[in-house]
Amino acid sequence: MILYNSPTSPFGRFVRVVALELGVKHEEKRIEVTSAEFLDELNPLRLIPTLELDDGRAVYDSRVIAAHVDSISGRPTLYPPSAGVDLHVRLALAIGVMEAGVQRRGEVTRPEPLRNLEYIAKLEQRIGRAIARLEMLAPVIAAGDLRIDQIATAVALEYTDFRYTRDWRAKAPFLAGWLARFAERPSFVETRPS
Amino acid sequence: MILYNSPTSPFGRFVRVVALELGVKHEEKRIEVTSAEFLDELNPLRLIPTLELDDGRAVYDSRVIAAHVDSISGRPTLYPPSAGVDLHVRLALAIGVMEAGVQRRGEVTRPEPLRNLEYIAKLEQRIGRAIARLEMLAPVIAAGDLRIDQIATAVALEYTDFRYTRDWRAKAPFLAGWLARFAERPSFVETRPS
Repeated sequence: MILYNSPTSPFGRFVRVVALELGVKHEEKRIEVTSAEFLDELNPLRLIPTLELDDGRAVYDSRVIAAHVDSISGRPTLYPPSAGVDLHVRLALAIGVMEAGVQRRGEVTRPEPLRNLEYIAKLEQRIGRAIARLEMLAPVIAAGDLRIDQIATAVALEYTDFRYTRDWRAKAPFLAGWLARFAERPSFVETRPS
Repeated sequence: MILYNSPTSPFGRFVRVVALELGVKHEEKRIEVTSAEFLDELNPLRLIPTLELDDGRAVYDSRVIAAHVDSISGRPTLYPPSAGVDLHVRLALAIGVMEAGVQRRGEVTRPEPLRNLEYIAKLEQRIGRAIARLEMLAPVIAAGDLRIDQIATAVALEYTDFRYTRDWRAKAPFLAGWLARFAERPSFVETRPS
């Protein structure tokens, strides 16, 4: 199967890491999504990541791809049912950090006259609050075998580093220490944007 | 339990309809989310919908709430496993229409000098392509018992009507006919934004 991706999308990195961790073979094709008209046939939203299955069907968005890859891997699931709804909320929290980061990036790269500084401030406050919560949750996130919330949290934090700031570490020392170790995983080293 | 919501969010309406259809009792509190500092304790992203469970735990975002409400309802699931990954892709497609609609609304309501007309055009094209795909999928969507993709599709289309245009019906007659019947459900009548 083929994973259509971009070099820097945190959502694309999230599903790549999941596939690598679970040993699910795929070909990654990095595309310029804004001009990728061919993608419309697979995903009319023209968004990456989009996964094309061997039978030609398409799977999106990132959460659906991650869950699908998990379901076909034959490995222990990254979504242990015993973790309950809280696991899915932690995943949504990490994805919320990615979304706010992507929205912030979109805003700061607008032509200056179109830039909304209030909106940028609001997104930065959202990211700050969410990382403060992740710090509170860090003992839960760090515990146990590899899970989907760990992967999403690490991707969200490294995307924050990449596009916004590394300064969150001062207020989130537990999370920072956990990330330093977790991000040494080969799946993270292989997919880190440069 | 308490569902924090806004009067017009399609994501909030989506989970309200799910809860009403499944008979899951809840209190809806409509809030002005941009100034709802109290919400941060439950959901540091400060986004609605956010569900507060009776034990004080919070559940978000809309997809997580919908799946959780489904899991506790005691009714037949809205996510029949036999529908496979395609069901989740159709759900993601409908949610993509909601997201593009909300992004478009955010852009068109910016102060005029900050408005990006290219971005608005891109979002309108995305919505148009997605609705064309939903028209192709309409026989699949319309078939069978009540499912999550039906609810999300109907909410997405009525949000398109509410904030953007009703003109999609000319190119999507099957979908338009289905929506006219489907949206007569009491759960849709009760939650329709005015």
